[in-house]
Amino acid sequence: MRPVRLGMVGGGSGAFIGAIHRIAARMDGRFALVAGALSSDPARAAASAAELGIRSYGDFAEMARAEAAREDGIEAVSIVTPNHLHAAPAAAFLRAGIHVICDKPLAATPEQAHEIAEAAQASGARFFLTHNYCAMPMVREARALVAEGALGDIRVVQAEYLQGWLADPAKGKQAEWRTDPARAGAGAIGDIGTHAWQLAQFVTGQTPASLSAELSSMVPGRAVDDDARIALRYGSGTRGGIWVSQVAVGQENGLSLRVFGTKAALEWRLPDPERLILSPKDGPARVLTRAQDRSASYRTPPGHPEGYLEGFANLYRDIASIIQGDSSFADRVPGLDAGLSGMGFIAAAQASSARGGAWVEVGP
Amino acid sequence: MRPVRLGMVGGGSGAFIGAIHRIAARMDGRFALVAGALSSDPARAAASAAELGIRSYGDFAEMARAEAAREDGIEAVSIVTPNHLHAAPAAAFLRAGIHVICDKPLAATPEQAHEIAEAAQASGARFFLTHNYCAMPMVREARALVAEGALGDIRVVQAEYLQGWLADPAKGKQAEWRTDPARAGAGAIGDIGTHAWQLAQFVTGQTPASLSAELSSMVPGRAVDDDARIALRYGSGTRGGIWVSQVAVGQENGLSLRVFGTKAALEWRLPDPERLILSPKDGPARVLTRAQDRSASYRTPPGHPEGYLEGFANLYRDIASIIQGDSSFADRVPGLDAGLSGMGFIAAAQASSARGGAWVEVGP
Amino acid sequence: MRPVRLGMVGGGSGAFIGAIHRIAARMDGRFALVAGALSSDPARAAASAAELGIRSYGDFAEMARAEAAREDGIEAVSIVTPNHLHAAPAAAFLRAGIHVICDKPLAATPEQAHEIAEAAQASGARFFLTHNYCAMPMVREARALVAEGALGDIRVVQAEYLQGWLADPAKGKQAEWRTDPARAGAGAIGDIGTHAWQLAQFVTGQTPASLSAELSSMVPGRAVDDDARIALRYGSGTRGGIWVSQVAVGQENGLSLRVFGTKAALEWRLPDPERLILSPKDGPARVLTRAQDRSASYRTPPGHPEGYLEGFANLYRDIASIIQGDSSFADRVPGLDAGLSGMGFIAAAQASSARGGAWVEVGP
Amino acid sequence: MRPVRLGMVGGGSGAFIGAIHRIAARMDGRFALVAGALSSDPARAAASAAELGIRSYGDFAEMARAEAAREDGIEAVSIVTPNHLHAAPAAAFLRAGIHVICDKPLAATPEQAHEIAEAAQASGARFFLTHNYCAMPMVREARALVAEGALGDIRVVQAEYLQGWLADPAKGKQAEWRTDPARAGAGAIGDIGTHAWQLAQFVTGQTPASLSAELSSMVPGRAVDDDARIALRYGSGTRGGIWVSQVAVGQENGLSLRVFGTKAALEWRLPDPERLILSPKDGPARVLTRAQDRSASYRTPPGHPEGYLEGFANLYRDIASIIQGDSSFADRVPGLDAGLSGMGFIAAAQASSARGGAWVEVGP
Repeated sequence: MRPVRLGMVGGGSGAFIGAIHRIAARMDGRFALVAGALSSDPARAAASAAELGIRSYGDFAEMARAEAAREDGIEAVSIVTPNHLHAAPAAAFLRAGIHVICDKPLAATPEQAHEIAEAAQASGARFFLTHNYCAMPMVREARALVAEGALGDIRVVQAEYLQGWLADPAKGKQAEWRTDPARAGAGAIGDIGTHAWQLAQFVTGQTPASLSAELSSMVPGRAVDDDARIALRYGSGTRGGIWVSQVAVGQENGLSLRVFGTKAALEWRLPDPERLILSPKDGPARVLTRAQDRSASYRTPPGHPEGYLEGFANLYRDIASIIQGDSSFADRVPGLDAGLSGMGFIAAAQASSARGGAWVEVGP
Repeated sequence: MRPVRLGMVGGGSGAFIGAIHRIAARMDGRFALVAGALSSDPARAAASAAELGIRSYGDFAEMARAEAAREDGIEAVSIVTPNHLHAAPAAAFLRAGIHVICDKPLAATPEQAHEIAEAAQASGARFFLTHNYCAMPMVREARALVAEGALGDIRVVQAEYLQGWLADPAKGKQAEWRTDPARAGAGAIGDIGTHAWQLAQFVTGQTPASLSAELSSMVPGRAVDDDARIALRYGSGTRGGIWVSQVAVGQENGLSLRVFGTKAALEWRLPDPERLILSPKDGPARVLTRAQDRSASYRTPPGHPEGYLEGFANLYRDIASIIQGDSSFADRVPGLDAGLSGMGFIAAAQASSARGGAWVEVGP
Repeated sequence: MRPVRLGMVGGGSGAFIGAIHRIAARMDGRFALVAGALSSDPARAAASAAELGIRSYGDFAEMARAEAAREDGIEAVSIVTPNHLHAAPAAAFLRAGIHVICDKPLAATPEQAHEIAEAAQASGARFFLTHNYCAMPMVREARALVAEGALGDIRVVQAEYLQGWLADPAKGKQAEWRTDPARAGAGAIGDIGTHAWQLAQFVTGQTPASLSAELSSMVPGRAVDDDARIALRYGSGTRGGIWVSQVAVGQENGLSLRVFGTKAALEWRLPDPERLILSPKDGPARVLTRAQDRSASYRTPPGHPEGYLEGFANLYRDIASIIQGDSSFADRVPGLDAGLSGMGFIAAAQASSARGGAWVEVGP
Repeated sequence: MRPVRLGMVGGGSGAFIGAIHRIAARMDGRFALVAGALSSDPARAAASAAELGIRSYGDFAEMARAEAAREDGIEAVSIVTPNHLHAAPAAAFLRAGIHVICDKPLAATPEQAHEIAEAAQASGARFFLTHNYCAMPMVREARALVAEGALGDIRVVQAEYLQGWLADPAKGKQAEWRTDPARAGAGAIGDIGTHAWQLAQFVTGQTPASLSAELSSMVPGRAVDDDARIALRYGSGTRGGIWVSQVAVGQENGLSLRVFGTKAALEWRLPDPERLILSPKDGPARVLTRAQDRSASYRTPPGHPEGYLEGFANLYRDIASIIQGDSSFADRVPGLDAGLSGMGFIAAAQASSARGGAWVEVGP
């Protein structure tokens, strides 16, 4: 099937999440990135676009107009700017009839969120929010288990999202806008708390009715929350909690979800994303893996874990560099010698075994 | 930089490793797949090529000739056929001056390996073997640690590669050729043993001088080994072992490496690929993660584990399907409602915290 | 040194915690159990005492009087009754000048707690409360690390204690009194919450100034809390949380503590009690084990984990049974055959290695 | 039941395994240690015996004679001397009709083993060998699972026992005799290899028919093996391996067993002794715990892990010291303050919850 023509707003060179979106869009060959307003700095936008070989715009409004007018214009746009810059481009593209793929959280303020909602409701185009964790295979399986009643009635839900990278005063572009109330809207509860909130809802299918929160700013001078502990009440009687922190030193990206029902419990942790623990009320816990996943979310068979593709891609990336003249990493890419060595290993192993385990030299 | 023009031999629809190679080649945008001889069955080859939108050949020899003659012909070719079909195409492309990226093991027989070696030595083109595990980030870091002497002198090396998927008589295309001596050349020692062999060499920088092996065929009627235990002697006095099995039920893809030196030890396990355990002779073990990796092998910052990209790509894949009219999975892709719910969560958390933890309803 | 003469109140046959106290008292030979009022049912008390070979009393008051009067009377008494029966015996023994070792929580009501406090303050004897988890070796090491400043200033503390065994309406003696407000005083927060509360204080050396709590009763008809989520504020600015549940199905005894400071974090989990994870703000996490413990709390060297002694004791218990005529388990106790088999193994291994790995039969 | 009267040969002050045997014998109150020949140095023997309050002998032969003659003489004796000193006392006590509990391996030489075997066969007394790991609860459950056919036919068995404490030239009493051929008989294969050998047999119920071994001495000047890799053939067609090392730095006591059958596999690791992983050929792995153990080998209910008793005993040990006048550790033993603090916690939690999560001060 023909790839979907994609544009991007934000994500110029040096950006974090823009590069992630591009890899994700490219991985299955279902999208072709063709246009972008990659930076608010026109020179940087143009340079980034040239590097990617795509049409460049200095401004998202112009891009929405121009692309909507082209026969071969973009069908969808990824918005990967800081939170306070989601609403204006999202609304512009939605009004131009172009599908929007927007990074989370929705916006920095309720007013901005409202602007997106109005534009989305008036548009024939779709709006997608990249809560990416809910697309991880074992999370999808967790949701399926809850939905089919494997846990019984849900009693207690606990989501955590712990990071340590903001334990010191913000330094660097990523940290700065995320701790600036004007650009981020909120601190940890917006940046990672919304992931935990969405994950819990996605898996349980339930939305809390009310909450009790304690937000703190641990780093002196910080104007947004960086640690929060939130108790949740669901209409159904379920109770839950969300704990988020960005001052949890030693935690790289500690997202986790635990759900306890009347019949069984499940636990999933991002640092060990391939395993979903299902604990029946009686009997031993079961370690579900992709072999049990029913969501068709894997590209590899059970024996090949997440990260396998990235390892493979590392080889291909190095090979491309070598082919194009950069041999810096040639020594880490296996070649003929590795192949011949493997053949020598096979031959020696077969010979030794045939001779009752005698020691056999491994030939070249 | 312009993508490298890539061809593929094997890997038609239904193949396993061909699809993996394509994703890996696509992930960083450094390759453009433009031609293929995807199957020995011409109709299937043509259909698979059409699906991918690439030039199709019924035969690798013709492909090598034709592509070498084109101005815009392929610069490299991936060979992803069963082991006994590596040598002929590899030699043909090498002779045509086209770089070869070949799946492991090198070949099914020493004669075939020799054919490749001769062609490679005579060619100006390069030959690459996809021992993909050695490109995983923490494996590269392991190698760097050994190389800089962090382990002291290496004393003992143990590599294991355990799978359970061949515990029963072979059924299905993948299992069948891998247990056929004519097509595979060897059993577990070739299919996965060469990975363990290469991994141990890659990390330690040492090659065993001799070995003592015990190869077994556990499944009645199987003509190749499916369990092997191999003792290794290195010239340096280092001792080691390789244990491989494809009848190890319950093991999905249990590749691991342990290296013990005079000063420290390290351990890496594929099922937990993000963590490299470095154990000094005295003092506590250290859990190294990508934050300590120095090989520039990650696409994401420390806080975002392997598998993160694939989760993100799952969202993009589903979004492409929705945009192109297939709404089967629309309910698992977050949209405006998720965004508004997140905004409601942020507002309620801020309000409750400001009011001393009072319970606050979460608005829509 | 002469063992301390010990008495016990409660802990008759069939009791859980009484048996635990007796094993703990016996393990190092520092106590000799000599007297008891083991049950409120005099016949059961007498039978239990006879089985243990100790002096029996039908009543703790009489026991306190009589033992205090004896030259060879008890020096200390363990009180292992349900919560509402701690105060009266504790006060009686304290008034008699006998040291008290009391199970937690202190009492079922504030009035009972007050009675103990008054008696303790008036007595020359000591009062000990068996918060046993704080005596586990790696917990003691955790406390030492905090005390020496390894974590910097403490910012966030999270304690959890999750159990699933009360997920259904109470059945059985242990469950019944623990869910009866009159006998237990509180539910999960008393039974296990006080452990989490004490553990957090013990390790951090800080006491929360105030708290915000949400207590729930998940099981229909239950009169005490069985799930609670409590936010903590410390005077120092530290924030924390306690989450306890006894309806967390699949959790056997999920006590854990995480402490995050400005310089490092630590994590300890009861299901993996030998490992204490120390995560510096920069650099890899360190897995501390008893080899790093400085509290002299182990009876075995680093190479021999917790549980090792119990395994050894299992052998001795079975051997005692065999010697005394009960051979039910004789087949699981190794004897001469195992010894000769091991000698055969050694001899064969030496012979094979000397003969270049030749296969050698293992003699009898 | 009356305790069995026990003697001990070896195990004087400073010994490692003697102290372990004493704790194990004491834990359940089934033995009373009453006599010993605790050291070959008569003064040290007498001092050690005095400390334990038992009858002292300067010589095992005299002890065997004297105890056999007493009405209240020992019924069993624990022999906890180095390997080369097992045979003479074992034979002496067996001939005197006294049961022998002997540390492993059986002896340092085949001749010594023979001496024990002859004495045992001629004696009415029993001979026990303390392969303690086979008495750990989940190991017993593993054996039960194999015996009932849960794994199907066994195909592959792998036992490992890795330690790092002998990575340097021997220093200290324990290391010295264990690396002295005259006293130990063998190196790693005797000291820990026999444990692995026995464990594999105990669980599978099968004994290897032949083996192929590679023994190495990694430490310069060492006269016994310190690393060994042994391939095993069973008569049944089962294949297996044993890998032992005492130069595996970073490994404290890495004993493990993996068994693969036609229907399922199981894995047990000493560093995580509470969990037994049962992996069916199809479907998710199951994490068995003591809740699934059927061997009645626990003293605590499922919710209370191995090591729990030792933590409890730590409290009791400190309490005994305090009672007897040593207050060094008084600050780590909870007392009245901890009890009152817990009561304050309960009261505050109940009050806050009743008032809708309002922040409540925690009273003293």
